[in-house]
Amino acid sequence: MNPTHAELLSQVLARYDHSPNPRLAEISRAAIRHLHAFVDEVRLQHDEWFAGVEFLTATGKICDDVRQEFILLSDTLGVSTLVEFITHDGVEGGTENTVLGPFHVPGSPERANGDSMLENDDAGDRVVIRGCVRNLHGEPLSGVKIDAWQNASTGFYACQQPGVQHTNNLRGVYRTDADGNFAIRTIRPVPYPIPDDGPAGKLLKDNGRNWWRPGHTHLWFTLEGHKQLITHLFDSESDYLTNDAVFGVRESLIRTFTKDASGELATTFDVVLEDA
Amino acid sequence: MNPTHAELLSQVLARYDHSPNPRLAEISRAAIRHLHAFVDEVRLQHDEWFAGVEFLTATGKICDDVRQEFILLSDTLGVSTLVEFITHDGVEGGTENTVLGPFHVPGSPERANGDSMLENDDAGDRVVIRGCVRNLHGEPLSGVKIDAWQNASTGFYACQQPGVQHTNNLRGVYRTDADGNFAIRTIRPVPYPIPDDGPAGKLLKDNGRNWWRPGHTHLWFTLEGHKQLITHLFDSESDYLTNDAVFGVRESLIRTFTKDASGELATTFDVVLEDA
Repeated sequence: MNPTHAELLSQVLARYDHSPNPRLAEISRAAIRHLHAFVDEVRLQHDEWFAGVEFLTATGKICDDVRQEFILLSDTLGVSTLVEFITHDGVEGGTENTVLGPFHVPGSPERANGDSMLENDDAGDRVVIRGCVRNLHGEPLSGVKIDAWQNASTGFYACQQPGVQHTNNLRGVYRTDADGNFAIRTIRPVPYPIPDDGPAGKLLKDNGRNWWRPGHTHLWFTLEGHKQLITHLFDSESDYLTNDAVFGVRESLIRTFTKDASGELATTFDVVLEDA
Repeated sequence: MNPTHAELLSQVLARYDHSPNPRLAEISRAAIRHLHAFVDEVRLQHDEWFAGVEFLTATGKICDDVRQEFILLSDTLGVSTLVEFITHDGVEGGTENTVLGPFHVPGSPERANGDSMLENDDAGDRVVIRGCVRNLHGEPLSGVKIDAWQNASTGFYACQQPGVQHTNNLRGVYRTDADGNFAIRTIRPVPYPIPDDGPAGKLLKDNGRNWWRPGHTHLWFTLEGHKQLITHLFDSESDYLTNDAVFGVRESLIRTFTKDASGELATTFDVVLEDA
């Protein structure tokens, strides 16, 4: 960094010497150092800077109650996955987490174990996901809240198609029973493109990147006294397992659907929650 | 960086190997590297990441035709000034540039040399800014477009107070005459707080930073065949020259207003435009 640029950076950093919030000051200073290093390294030109301003503005503008384009951007840059890694760094034995994604909608209906999340007709294969939730000591955990959501076989989540899909289609809240078991009936998840009509999707296309995700079901486990777990179940037969647009795939989260004794397509997703 | 984090980063970077746009790929890769390094260094937690997502979303949402909060954010982090430094790196003899700021509105009215930019009553001191625009060889340049804008003595720009200030108050386009001279009548600029009702201003306050700017008049010079110059004139008697919220002050741009022969408060702002 040339002396003028370094002098500017130290001037900016010095403004945080009396911040009343040490963690905010730490994050602000680090963000500023890395931002300046980035601008300096690529010798960012005025028109490129302004294109960046316009990109970020458009990303904010397209966000609404059911669309979070900054999360999508964070996902596609691998930042969300890095944050998940950091949040879980150093803990052994717990089920791996992965990205939240931009399509979680709070307030899904409570459903009984074994019930289906389908509220609409769907051409997809019917499947059942069964599992047991335990703690790190192998003890089953009852009353675990499991918030589940996934896309329809047309590729879209209910929140992307108001008026087309029922607002509660393919989402629901389940609870583990006294033995820690749960059962979710749904359709086999299919690959889908991330939204490509906004800045995050356009940036992938402009860079020649794949913007599809492999088929997956979102599962979010919470229980008082335990670390929450936000994760996916991936279908081992899906495309895009090796080039997921949002870097969400973990080997340990891939499952194969096979016919069970009753002839139903089924898979098992046992979970270990870490202590809080 | 631990091996898992480094492996994730290289996976993300590899997605740009076949980008059809080399410069976009270069900028994307550098942004991703620095973003990951930042997140890793501060060990960004999930709730902090989400606070960042919400901050960026709010920053986009508050932008409109006359307010650009991402530019304001860039200004307050010193990024805008760094980009200006880079754009002008290595050129000697030209007038120094500084930040554009978030209040430039295109389409200011053409005004004759010597005319005032005032369209409203204003309690401020009347001043005149005179100067000559030359090229690097000392030759006067005629027909240079000078887009000028500043705040009223109440602290606000016209675009911040529709219905209160006339839309064209304290802004105008002047042209240098055959000898390269110009003359702008206005009021003495006063310090003002940057907008503190949005995310960028709030972030300064949360960090205990000054959010005022020293008094200045914006001047944007353009002439075919020459590099455009976006700059300010600063009043040497203003407060906040040493802790400008947006790091815009340059020693060479500070001027003193003194009474001229006719008793008018005046200063001289000669300019040298670089070849394109």
